[in-house]
Amino acid sequence: MCGIVGIVGHSNVNQSIYDALTVLQHRGQDAAGIVTCDGDRLFLRKDNGMVRDVFRTRHMRRLVGNMGIGHVRYPTAGSSSSAEAQPFYVNSPYGITLAHNGNLTNSAALAEDIFRADLRHINTTSDSEVLLNVFAHELQTLGKLMPQPEDIFSAVRRVHERVEGAYAVVAMITGYGILAFRDPYGVRPVCFGKRETDKGTEYMVASESVALSGLGFHLERDLAPGEAIYITSQGEIFTQQCADNPRLNPCIFEHVYLARPDSIIDDISVYKARLRMGEKLAEKLLREWPDHDIDVVIPIPDTSRTSALQLANTLDVKFREGFIKNRYIGRTFIMPGQQQRKKSVRQKLNAIELEFSGKNVLLVDDSIVRGTTCNEIIQMAREAGANKVYFASAAPPVQFPNVYGIDMPAANELIAHGRSVEEICALIGADKLIYQDLQDLVDACREGNPAIEQFECSVFDGNYVAGNISRDYLDYLERLRNDASKHKRDRERAAALAENGIIDLHNAE
Amino acid sequence: MCGIVGIVGHSNVNQSIYDALTVLQHRGQDAAGIVTCDGDRLFLRKDNGMVRDVFRTRHMRRLVGNMGIGHVRYPTAGSSSSAEAQPFYVNSPYGITLAHNGNLTNSAALAEDIFRADLRHINTTSDSEVLLNVFAHELQTLGKLMPQPEDIFSAVRRVHERVEGAYAVVAMITGYGILAFRDPYGVRPVCFGKRETDKGTEYMVASESVALSGLGFHLERDLAPGEAIYITSQGEIFTQQCADNPRLNPCIFEHVYLARPDSIIDDISVYKARLRMGEKLAEKLLREWPDHDIDVVIPIPDTSRTSALQLANTLDVKFREGFIKNRYIGRTFIMPGQQQRKKSVRQKLNAIELEFSGKNVLLVDDSIVRGTTCNEIIQMAREAGANKVYFASAAPPVQFPNVYGIDMPAANELIAHGRSVEEICALIGADKLIYQDLQDLVDACREGNPAIEQFECSVFDGNYVAGNISRDYLDYLERLRNDASKHKRDRERAAALAENGIIDLHNAE
Amino acid sequence: MCGIVGIVGHSNVNQSIYDALTVLQHRGQDAAGIVTCDGDRLFLRKDNGMVRDVFRTRHMRRLVGNMGIGHVRYPTAGSSSSAEAQPFYVNSPYGITLAHNGNLTNSAALAEDIFRADLRHINTTSDSEVLLNVFAHELQTLGKLMPQPEDIFSAVRRVHERVEGAYAVVAMITGYGILAFRDPYGVRPVCFGKRETDKGTEYMVASESVALSGLGFHLERDLAPGEAIYITSQGEIFTQQCADNPRLNPCIFEHVYLARPDSIIDDISVYKARLRMGEKLAEKLLREWPDHDIDVVIPIPDTSRTSALQLANTLDVKFREGFIKNRYIGRTFIMPGQQQRKKSVRQKLNAIELEFSGKNVLLVDDSIVRGTTCNEIIQMAREAGANKVYFASAAPPVQFPNVYGIDMPAANELIAHGRSVEEICALIGADKLIYQDLQDLVDACREGNPAIEQFECSVFDGNYVAGNISRDYLDYLERLRNDASKHKRDRERAAALAENGIIDLHNAE
Amino acid sequence: MCGIVGIVGHSNVNQSIYDALTVLQHRGQDAAGIVTCDGDRLFLRKDNGMVRDVFRTRHMRRLVGNMGIGHVRYPTAGSSSSAEAQPFYVNSPYGITLAHNGNLTNSAALAEDIFRADLRHINTTSDSEVLLNVFAHELQTLGKLMPQPEDIFSAVRRVHERVEGAYAVVAMITGYGILAFRDPYGVRPVCFGKRETDKGTEYMVASESVALSGLGFHLERDLAPGEAIYITSQGEIFTQQCADNPRLNPCIFEHVYLARPDSIIDDISVYKARLRMGEKLAEKLLREWPDHDIDVVIPIPDTSRTSALQLANTLDVKFREGFIKNRYIGRTFIMPGQQQRKKSVRQKLNAIELEFSGKNVLLVDDSIVRGTTCNEIIQMAREAGANKVYFASAAPPVQFPNVYGIDMPAANELIAHGRSVEEICALIGADKLIYQDLQDLVDACREGNPAIEQFECSVFDGNYVAGNISRDYLDYLERLRNDASKHKRDRERAAALAENGIIDLHNAE
Repeated sequence: MCGIVGIVGHSNVNQSIYDALTVLQHRGQDAAGIVTCDGDRLFLRKDNGMVRDVFRTRHMRRLVGNMGIGHVRYPTAGSSSSAEAQPFYVNSPYGITLAHNGNLTNSAALAEDIFRADLRHINTTSDSEVLLNVFAHELQTLGKLMPQPEDIFSAVRRVHERVEGAYAVVAMITGYGILAFRDPYGVRPVCFGKRETDKGTEYMVASESVALSGLGFHLERDLAPGEAIYITSQGEIFTQQCADNPRLNPCIFEHVYLARPDSIIDDISVYKARLRMGEKLAEKLLREWPDHDIDVVIPIPDTSRTSALQLANTLDVKFREGFIKNRYIGRTFIMPGQQQRKKSVRQKLNAIELEFSGKNVLLVDDSIVRGTTCNEIIQMAREAGANKVYFASAAPPVQFPNVYGIDMPAANELIAHGRSVEEICALIGADKLIYQDLQDLVDACREGNPAIEQFECSVFDGNYVAGNISRDYLDYLERLRNDASKHKRDRERAAALAENGIIDLHNAE
Repeated sequence: MCGIVGIVGHSNVNQSIYDALTVLQHRGQDAAGIVTCDGDRLFLRKDNGMVRDVFRTRHMRRLVGNMGIGHVRYPTAGSSSSAEAQPFYVNSPYGITLAHNGNLTNSAALAEDIFRADLRHINTTSDSEVLLNVFAHELQTLGKLMPQPEDIFSAVRRVHERVEGAYAVVAMITGYGILAFRDPYGVRPVCFGKRETDKGTEYMVASESVALSGLGFHLERDLAPGEAIYITSQGEIFTQQCADNPRLNPCIFEHVYLARPDSIIDDISVYKARLRMGEKLAEKLLREWPDHDIDVVIPIPDTSRTSALQLANTLDVKFREGFIKNRYIGRTFIMPGQQQRKKSVRQKLNAIELEFSGKNVLLVDDSIVRGTTCNEIIQMAREAGANKVYFASAAPPVQFPNVYGIDMPAANELIAHGRSVEEICALIGADKLIYQDLQDLVDACREGNPAIEQFECSVFDGNYVAGNISRDYLDYLERLRNDASKHKRDRERAAALAENGIIDLHNAE
Repeated sequence: MCGIVGIVGHSNVNQSIYDALTVLQHRGQDAAGIVTCDGDRLFLRKDNGMVRDVFRTRHMRRLVGNMGIGHVRYPTAGSSSSAEAQPFYVNSPYGITLAHNGNLTNSAALAEDIFRADLRHINTTSDSEVLLNVFAHELQTLGKLMPQPEDIFSAVRRVHERVEGAYAVVAMITGYGILAFRDPYGVRPVCFGKRETDKGTEYMVASESVALSGLGFHLERDLAPGEAIYITSQGEIFTQQCADNPRLNPCIFEHVYLARPDSIIDDISVYKARLRMGEKLAEKLLREWPDHDIDVVIPIPDTSRTSALQLANTLDVKFREGFIKNRYIGRTFIMPGQQQRKKSVRQKLNAIELEFSGKNVLLVDDSIVRGTTCNEIIQMAREAGANKVYFASAAPPVQFPNVYGIDMPAANELIAHGRSVEEICALIGADKLIYQDLQDLVDACREGNPAIEQFECSVFDGNYVAGNISRDYLDYLERLRNDASKHKRDRERAAALAENGIIDLHNAE
Repeated sequence: MCGIVGIVGHSNVNQSIYDALTVLQHRGQDAAGIVTCDGDRLFLRKDNGMVRDVFRTRHMRRLVGNMGIGHVRYPTAGSSSSAEAQPFYVNSPYGITLAHNGNLTNSAALAEDIFRADLRHINTTSDSEVLLNVFAHELQTLGKLMPQPEDIFSAVRRVHERVEGAYAVVAMITGYGILAFRDPYGVRPVCFGKRETDKGTEYMVASESVALSGLGFHLERDLAPGEAIYITSQGEIFTQQCADNPRLNPCIFEHVYLARPDSIIDDISVYKARLRMGEKLAEKLLREWPDHDIDVVIPIPDTSRTSALQLANTLDVKFREGFIKNRYIGRTFIMPGQQQRKKSVRQKLNAIELEFSGKNVLLVDDSIVRGTTCNEIIQMAREAGANKVYFASAAPPVQFPNVYGIDMPAANELIAHGRSVEEICALIGADKLIYQDLQDLVDACREGNPAIEQFECSVFDGNYVAGNISRDYLDYLERLRNDASKHKRDRERAAALAENGIIDLHNAE
């Protein structure tokens, strides 16, 4: 998961992009980057770290120009390209910079094609660099000295034809304009809006609508699947459908966990969808366990709070915040001769004994992935004096890997992979476990936009909407995501990068 | 406000102190410091910034030793000494390091005494440096080669006699042990506890009990007002009352806002106290406005959530989280030629329209200080479509400056200073405003520990328990805290310091 | 002036390139960079600063691979592109990195061509970025999946046709090999050599032979003007003449000042050339002033020491080191409210009074550029008690700007520009001034390699060997180099860059 | 060896102290520090590194005040205290900061005394911290609220009584003035001078006179052995002899190697002393080897150049600079899995073959310590084609450890320790080896100031003038200085410190 933003304004856009990235920080805290364009010059700053750490005054002062794009990165295990900060740059043609959210499932093959067909060198394992070069190649092929909107759209069309996977992209053509496009299934979100200023209308594209509203932009709409939007540096705006058979199959996990509750994605209020998840989960619980003895509903902060409150309301059971979240997370340092100690959930959560003591509690989380955290939390609840500890997940069992840009563990590390609910319940140590039904989850979301026929629900049902996910690819992912390999490989790289600050092939000012 | 911690363990205590400071980070995010003692050597690291930024692996590796103390600082406007990170050090006698939470109200006079009587040089405006030197002087006067607990306590007794104000102190006598003491009114909190390890019992003193429980320490009890505790490097523990007329008058604002809800202070659960605040506020509301037309209760996150929930329960009105808090806060950069732009509340909070649209909402906050934030939030509620916007404060009107270590604006910047509730209501733009009664607040807190006869409530009633607060002193504070002067003075200093990283007269390894 | 190096080895080349850059540090202390190639991956580190400051352990650890190139930069005022560190990178075709020493005199026109013909974006004002893109374009045009030596050489041939000016270039074709070439006039130096290791022969190209000898490489020979050398990653070596009418017209200023005395350039020992300069200058002096009353010859350290010693020997006058050079140079800080103070020569040199007191001294410098330093030194000599102060320049009057990569002031800032020797003597305050004759200088150098028909002597005679230097271009340079404009423009940029550390459009690991 | 400086001026002294430290940089490149005093506030910056690296604009801006002291440190192996930067600070009495050059030989005993008698904590192994606390204790004992010059001198007198070893000290009494004093044998140098400004006379004390002359101060004189100078913040100057039996026995190694040639120490011009060393060495050579066949005299740069030139003149043999010194020294990085490679002399020096080829060369160095470098250089001379390689040392054989502040290896690592000249000659591989006679060295120096009866020549003759150097102490030093132990211990510490930047117990602004 990542966050993207692009702005064409009438004065320096650096602060606005910075603010938007801050709003989108929940989508990626691993790296951040901004590139701005002033005339025919680009100014770029990117590094590993959170937005507040990557951009200092000295960087911001350099980031001049009335248009620019930005990115926050969450390391996507799938691509193993966790090491590279975005945006990326190629100087030919025009100088193009690009950032994206998603994951290409034919990245390796494309990288080879790009080199063979166009002699383009790819220096990282990032699929963003591949995507950029595919787009650059297609645009270069048209050979225009000054690319017109139809040229841009034509290149996007070619990208849709060649690229497989999920991608929400923002790119900048140096001196000309900003482009955004969304894959033909609309898996990952991207919307756009505008704000009026004294100097004229300014445009923004962003992963989530909160980035718009937080900065005083008015949400126009989401990009349609396959659609592209091109805003010239002069503020002219063009949109076009660039895919042959677009279908809107948005990722349902955005509603479950990824997106901010105050965002509206594909016309669905994430907040409302979560309320409905709580409601539907309560209904199932009442249906299956009419004589329940739950004394209190307690959310695992923060995401599940919305659905847990509505669940409690529907059950007509008391809602209480029995866990206090520690907002400040420290590191565990390895002293010479020591082994890495595991950071326990106990450093993140604290139980208020009063709310547990002698009670039958229903803990609610948005979803259960590995199950290790659940296990610890349930134990904490028992130690705090709970009589019975029931557990509810606002999402169905997570059973399959994600190939569209969400950083999830390999299948064999998913607690629900190949296990019954009873087995899972025993493993996490709950007295009872209840999962949302997939249909209920889909209904909870679709109620916001009945026009959506199908959601991308592969982590729940194994059905990959963008197709072509072979056993081989999944095995490849499995190897990459395997904890052991991640430790040895990605972590080393990340460590190297974290130390280096910036690492680079660059030609910039 | 600040956070303090001290640990005597059986292996390196650096990670534990670091973790404890992280848990106490809410008490001060301005600076952090740790000093450890290994044999007769001290190792210190302190700097401006949050815990996660101040301590890097290279610092932690140096911080060896089985005992140490730590500090997180919130700049206390009153002392204007906002610039100095703690702990402080003097080499004579023994090498003593010290950190404290609170504020001395006779600091200037003491500084002069110290120089005249003992030729001790004070290099900062920090009252902690003064406090340290007073204690050091008193201990030196005893002239023991190896100080015994009774010597330590005797020096603390002298400190109580000379020092005025509120102070919870942790100090370390190089090679000998760790000391903590609390002023004779017990204004600021400090507690201690222990944990058993393979190697023996380890002791911790800390500002709040969460720091203990988060690290597996068992809370023994709070220090009594005037009491001191001394734990030798060998793990022997001594306590003694060192004040003549100790009275427990703890700061009530800890329960209103400062402390973490999962802390227990002077036997009062902060969480429970807040629940009761909500209950009492609801009762007052029902009493005064029996036919209210409130549709929904909405907390201003995060502190008020506990009392707001209970208030809603008591009112039997729906509770909803209508404001989403942006967890990631960015900076506003000043570009050349620009003026500083004000960070609006809108960058911190986002309203979910659904919860406001067409409804009569009751917004609940823990307290109202300047009122400017209230005003913006009420406006946001209206823009989100609220029909009526009522506002409730879980604390009474804040009318007077604080002189005991809480960073509050000057009296003339307090919206409740010299104004009626109606006037305040009009200023913040609410349709109705309701404040907790002071007696209700006191009762809500005292219910947890009926033995407490009086709380330090000066911000509400202007009664300074530790006495001797002259008009002159308040005027002096007023000048210091005045926004304009703060901008010109403290901010410059803070900027200088922020740049410098470390600032120092040092003799360390 | 800059220094370049490239190595194809059998193990990691990072340390060797680093060592070579250190040896070449005198050619540029403004910025440094290394890029290495491991398989098809590039690793790059470059920044403003000296070699010892730019490369830290963490950078060196990343710079893996058996081939790589490096660069040290002296800001060439002419190009005004002083801000960018090298090597530069383009990803198409193959991924090419390049660094060069010299200056292109048709850089602006080429930059426009490149964009128009190939849509290649140039993001800096560095002529190196232009040169790289011209080469990349020509190589791309050939469209080979795997470029052969003849393709490489063909592209170099095209570069020679399109590019005007002086350039000694090292480039790396990712995965394939390292290339070096020299402009058709051989203005700037570049040589190559090899060393035998257990694992096989390793090759190095470098600006000066000292870089080879310092690392145990054996100097094979200088590249001929127009010649290119291509060493594959497997260690195969190819050379070819790529220019139609190559002529060897090497820059004579390398011998006067730029090069290290222990280097051999175009078969001329710089050290010996300088000895001969001293000899010839002595002969002229004896010729013109047979009855001189010089008591002692004193060099201005460090460059002139070699010629001054031989001059003294030839004159049969005592040689003494009357000036001590301060090896450690500090900065002058500007305190708030202060003006920039001028760093005086007195902070760099100290006169030993004994050697001046009551004597007639002949001060010897390698050349006189602005004359301001001379003036100060002569004054120091007088203050140290000298009776008469004579001044000798081992080079003729510097009268014309340099367009081939030497950072020299604009013509109107050259003391010898449009002035007679007498006028200059008066301006610098000497009792007598003697310049080397140009023919003597040429002879002193040519004696080492009589095959050289002509040296590039334009700073002395205004004759630009590579041709096409229009009045317009010189005017353009004049404006750029004008002190005032340099202050306002380049310095600002340099300051910005110095602060930024790295600045970048990058896609690297 | 270290360098010290102190200035009392009429405006900010930070830049002047910085400049003076730069001039003294040759005396210590390991760490640097400045403390300034403004009213009763101290501002300090110190860190490991060279002056240019330790002080940035942000530090200099803080270092306000019209008086201050500074220090550059060379790690003195003897004290093993290599880890701590100076100046040091104690807050009682008055706030005193201190820096020194030298070494105390009873440091350990003093440290214990200080703690027992005064309960003063010593946190480092630096003898400077001990010296500071001894002085502070003695001054505190006098108990004056405002110390008078006689109090200061009285405390210095006590220091002379208690402290053994060599020390040139500069100290600052916060708010009152600057003090300097020299041990009763005058082993280490310290001088003072003044400059007139518009605002009045300014005073400087410094290790070497070049620091004065470089900043426009006029050298008044050296401090006498045992003498102290006290300059009040108002610019009143007081001097007094504070030792009972002062004798001037200055360290002769200052003239051999340590000091800058342009310094005048105890009325001896270092430059002239070196000329005379060359002369005397030539006379001995002619005496012992009248029919020598030396073709050319070649100095090992830089120190020996002065004596080598005069030696050549006296011999009437050609003088040539056959070795070029590489001014830029890089590091050898340890890559994972690699062993530390030895930096060879070849990276520092380069031989010009012309000057060696077929000739009988006499290489001249200032002294021979370990002999390993000699060996390599002689080999280089042979490889450059020398026929015979003779070697001359301008100093006698270095046979004994130094206990007065010069960082020299343990006795068993000194090539001359227990070996005849013939044995040494064989070990270094020379065809002939000639050492200066000690009496000649002494005469060469004393000629500048016949009043000096005795020099501290212990490295040559084992006679420690300040007395009381027991076998035990020398053994202790031997262990400390032993290469193996240094590697394991000091290097680790140095590494830790280098990483930490600043390390500190501090109470400063």
